[in-house]
Amino acid sequence: MTARPRYVYLGPSGTFTEAALLAMTVGSEIEAIAVVDVPAALSAVRAGEADHAAVAIENTVEGGVTATLDSLAEGAPLVIQGEVVLPVEFELVAREPISLDAIERITAHSHAWAQVRRWAHATVPQAVFVPASSNAAGALAVAASEPVGGIPVDAALAPPGTAERLGLHKVLEHVADNPHAATRFVRIGRPGEVPAPTGSDKTTLTVHLPTDRSGALLEMLEQFAARGVNLSRIESRPRWDHPGEYSFSIDALGHIAEERIADALMGLYRTCPLVVFQGSYPAAGAASADVQGHMTDQAFADARAWVAHLRNGHHSA
Amino acid sequence: MTARPRYVYLGPSGTFTEAALLAMTVGSEIEAIAVVDVPAALSAVRAGEADHAAVAIENTVEGGVTATLDSLAEGAPLVIQGEVVLPVEFELVAREPISLDAIERITAHSHAWAQVRRWAHATVPQAVFVPASSNAAGALAVAASEPVGGIPVDAALAPPGTAERLGLHKVLEHVADNPHAATRFVRIGRPGEVPAPTGSDKTTLTVHLPTDRSGALLEMLEQFAARGVNLSRIESRPRWDHPGEYSFSIDALGHIAEERIADALMGLYRTCPLVVFQGSYPAAGAASADVQGHMTDQAFADARAWVAHLRNGHHSA
Amino acid sequence: MTARPRYVYLGPSGTFTEAALLAMTVGSEIEAIAVVDVPAALSAVRAGEADHAAVAIENTVEGGVTATLDSLAEGAPLVIQGEVVLPVEFELVAREPISLDAIERITAHSHAWAQVRRWAHATVPQAVFVPASSNAAGALAVAASEPVGGIPVDAALAPPGTAERLGLHKVLEHVADNPHAATRFVRIGRPGEVPAPTGSDKTTLTVHLPTDRSGALLEMLEQFAARGVNLSRIESRPRWDHPGEYSFSIDALGHIAEERIADALMGLYRTCPLVVFQGSYPAAGAASADVQGHMTDQAFADARAWVAHLRNGHHSA
Amino acid sequence: MTARPRYVYLGPSGTFTEAALLAMTVGSEIEAIAVVDVPAALSAVRAGEADHAAVAIENTVEGGVTATLDSLAEGAPLVIQGEVVLPVEFELVAREPISLDAIERITAHSHAWAQVRRWAHATVPQAVFVPASSNAAGALAVAASEPVGGIPVDAALAPPGTAERLGLHKVLEHVADNPHAATRFVRIGRPGEVPAPTGSDKTTLTVHLPTDRSGALLEMLEQFAARGVNLSRIESRPRWDHPGEYSFSIDALGHIAEERIADALMGLYRTCPLVVFQGSYPAAGAASADVQGHMTDQAFADARAWVAHLRNGHHSA
Repeated sequence: MTARPRYVYLGPSGTFTEAALLAMTVGSEIEAIAVVDVPAALSAVRAGEADHAAVAIENTVEGGVTATLDSLAEGAPLVIQGEVVLPVEFELVAREPISLDAIERITAHSHAWAQVRRWAHATVPQAVFVPASSNAAGALAVAASEPVGGIPVDAALAPPGTAERLGLHKVLEHVADNPHAATRFVRIGRPGEVPAPTGSDKTTLTVHLPTDRSGALLEMLEQFAARGVNLSRIESRPRWDHPGEYSFSIDALGHIAEERIADALMGLYRTCPLVVFQGSYPAAGAASADVQGHMTDQAFADARAWVAHLRNGHHSA
Repeated sequence: MTARPRYVYLGPSGTFTEAALLAMTVGSEIEAIAVVDVPAALSAVRAGEADHAAVAIENTVEGGVTATLDSLAEGAPLVIQGEVVLPVEFELVAREPISLDAIERITAHSHAWAQVRRWAHATVPQAVFVPASSNAAGALAVAASEPVGGIPVDAALAPPGTAERLGLHKVLEHVADNPHAATRFVRIGRPGEVPAPTGSDKTTLTVHLPTDRSGALLEMLEQFAARGVNLSRIESRPRWDHPGEYSFSIDALGHIAEERIADALMGLYRTCPLVVFQGSYPAAGAASADVQGHMTDQAFADARAWVAHLRNGHHSA
Repeated sequence: MTARPRYVYLGPSGTFTEAALLAMTVGSEIEAIAVVDVPAALSAVRAGEADHAAVAIENTVEGGVTATLDSLAEGAPLVIQGEVVLPVEFELVAREPISLDAIERITAHSHAWAQVRRWAHATVPQAVFVPASSNAAGALAVAASEPVGGIPVDAALAPPGTAERLGLHKVLEHVADNPHAATRFVRIGRPGEVPAPTGSDKTTLTVHLPTDRSGALLEMLEQFAARGVNLSRIESRPRWDHPGEYSFSIDALGHIAEERIADALMGLYRTCPLVVFQGSYPAAGAASADVQGHMTDQAFADARAWVAHLRNGHHSA
Repeated sequence: MTARPRYVYLGPSGTFTEAALLAMTVGSEIEAIAVVDVPAALSAVRAGEADHAAVAIENTVEGGVTATLDSLAEGAPLVIQGEVVLPVEFELVAREPISLDAIERITAHSHAWAQVRRWAHATVPQAVFVPASSNAAGALAVAASEPVGGIPVDAALAPPGTAERLGLHKVLEHVADNPHAATRFVRIGRPGEVPAPTGSDKTTLTVHLPTDRSGALLEMLEQFAARGVNLSRIESRPRWDHPGEYSFSIDALGHIAEERIADALMGLYRTCPLVVFQGSYPAAGAASADVQGHMTDQAFADARAWVAHLRNGHHSA
């Protein structure tokens, strides 16, 4: 019998999402369960079959963004409880040692291939791409010497660690077109205790606007600007069921326990048709929220005290 | 021995300010004391020699605006406790009945003359203007058959009621170039209990900006706009002692006891070098503040409850 | 020898992208060439091997968004020349007639499966999902009675028209969880003549901001709002190579031939580190840009004439 | 016969306005004509009886602001062609040498007295104030040993230079409560050639807004902010004839010959019910407009060329 938290992730074993899950839970005993897609992962958490899900949310090699954002916004509420950012890079793995110019066919998920095309053109120009249903499936086919979609393959591109895990030969590592490319993964859970603020946090929101007027967007953003809150991500999604209306997915730098975030949330709540709070959690990296002096909790407390003083008929010194 | 409140006003007896004072205090027993100028009036209140001052503050026939705003902003704090708006119109008064075309010289304060020039050009084109130190002084000179600045005069322009008060002949009434012209007068007092909100109130503020960038002004105004607060007056005054910096005198529609005004004040307090609260008081006329649904006190309370709920790890329904 | 324009699209034959390509080119003789992914499609156009590419750009079932936006923004300039929006719905196809409760395994691309999960749970709860590398590959496997990833399958989910094209049995049509779900596809080409304005156009831009301050975003959006330009899409992308900086992908309603769009573009050009124009083209659907009276070309011409008049020392009537 | 330009100013001789007129016309042969008030001065220019008027416009000791702004906004168009800023300070003058503590009564215009009250309280606490119809009239009465309003006076407060001009004794100079106080005077003329830009200019405007919503004011100010135009003065005036509507009097830093000012004017012209251009002219003092790099004429020309290039189907390098 176990009290280990149960995590679901986009499988099979060997995906980038699994690597992110390991990074999120370093030093903890967990139970990891692979599922077939992001909606399945979130459903498992909603249903109580899992405690948490690890899913990609931004600029991904595995196509998770749209699916994750859509799935988060629909159904019973879920919140983000943490994030990790992993570089986008691959291993080139084969069953036996093989020289680069002997490789005729390489398998991988099509998204992975899109991320290494310049490398492929320069390094293995003769190689033909054979799409696999996932990077992990491609690597398993190589390990089993099985064809992919009926076509024999010589090598696979897969996440770091795959060669060691499957007992394959690592032909090349650090394969990537863009050394700065990265994917952001988040830990999802059911609403409950909000993680304590760390001084470097993010708050994720979904906000609806009633119109496509740029003025409406300006007014929504003024709710952040008037409190000195910066945004690290904003994406509009058309509301297909309400033509001309938009849903915005936003990451704001700061924590709901901070006055400036709470104040901005209150402003949005009053002025927008819908605001969904999707969590405050520690930001990956050391990026501080860079709070200006007049936006600190102390500044808010001072301002509140000043107005209370005035309301009682007193005057500021 | 008396408990009547003492009011100071710009004298002598017979000025528009006295008329405003009477309008402000209809039905009350008061003691009215004429003073020589607006700074003297405000000093008397600051020193406790008077309880209130009645002074012109906007678009005046007696030149009060600049003096009033400057005097309010400097020295011990004073607050505005009420306002009245009076039309700008005059009586033409003489010692004896006189036909309009027999009038050779008319006296008045030069500001009054400026307000009736078109009338004079059309009605008494032959008349020469003789400047008096105040409208009341001009009327008194007419009553006493004394010259003004050494020049004999036939008639005077003075506030409504002057003929009756001084036993003069009313040659013409409702003299005005612009039937819409009006002057706003305010009742000034020392800080103390703020008048209760009526649903149609104004709040007067002085706010300093640290720079002349139009962006800085935009940011200041966003503090109002983000709370749906409208302004009925905004005036910039250069801070002569701080070149390139500005002081703004602002009338906002609403009362400090209302959440949206309090919230805007808190935002200003946090972001501007100086904010001086100069009173919340009933607005003259029936002009309502036109509060949008999401800016009511109830909307603020709902938003606050929602954030408190989220901070505790719950979720909105 | 042929003058037919050459189009590349995300293949194989039978994808939603092919359906979009057909919708874009109704009534035209074209040559259609399937490629393996979006970067390959854009590269072919850049290299002159094709005249146009048809690619998904928003809310896709085939994962095109991120790849398309990234690929558009990098490399030799390409422009969008048109768009179509297709509903997201599928056919359930099998080799022989089969009752729904006899289906044990269904294949499809994992993105397609994510779009029909609720339908599957309600209609074929017993069915297991077998991921294919594309919807078309899954349907072909069904047609050939071949296993997918080594697993035999009974049916496939594929775009409308697949059964007829491959001679399969159509078990069910209009399969979709969300009747409003849709995908936006665009026609890409090399810069050249801009399509003439139709009165209902879009302009796509990539704009860099030098900082993550919400104030910087506000200032950028004011360039649109000050000209009455509305946005139908805005997405921020972190610039992984410039931490803390952001790239925005924007669809504005209007055409560069219109003054208000040209004026907004000039404002962005002056104030943002980078602005990339990615095309003005007819918007799908009848959605008009809803130009306010003071934002028409005539209003801009009038304003320009007025200022020219003033500069010459004249005065407006 | 003469070609000297004719100037009207608020007389009599010896006013601050006359001093400002002299400062404006140093080194020029002019004809100076005193008039009784600001509307008379502007009427003379409108009627062609004078070429220019010198009038106070901001923070004045002589009450000119409201009258000037009102008179400028009504009637045939006039423009501002230049400005000077004079410190607010006075001479204390008497017919014979007199010690300060022997002065029993001082005359001056009530506005002047308001500016020296603290000095009077500290320096001549025994002196009683006798209001004159103007500072010049008070000084003339002292010179002629005549009473003011029937009251004998010992000394007068008057603008610098009065003692020398009238052959009076200068009891004290540099009399002022606030060493930073100053008045801004402008040179008014009929529309015609706009003065050439100097790199440090102002543009004066009257702008109407259709509503008292703070959002409407924000949108108007965005027309300036979006072009990097700063304001050195903004004043709202209620439109008494249109309750709830406002007229704004604005000084913007820059010249209509500059692109950023012209562009902001065009934006205002398109979006506001009324915009009146009241002149571009050299600013007093060395205050530069501090034009940011992306707001220079060159930046506007570059942006225009870029859009023209794109409209022709080309692409930026």
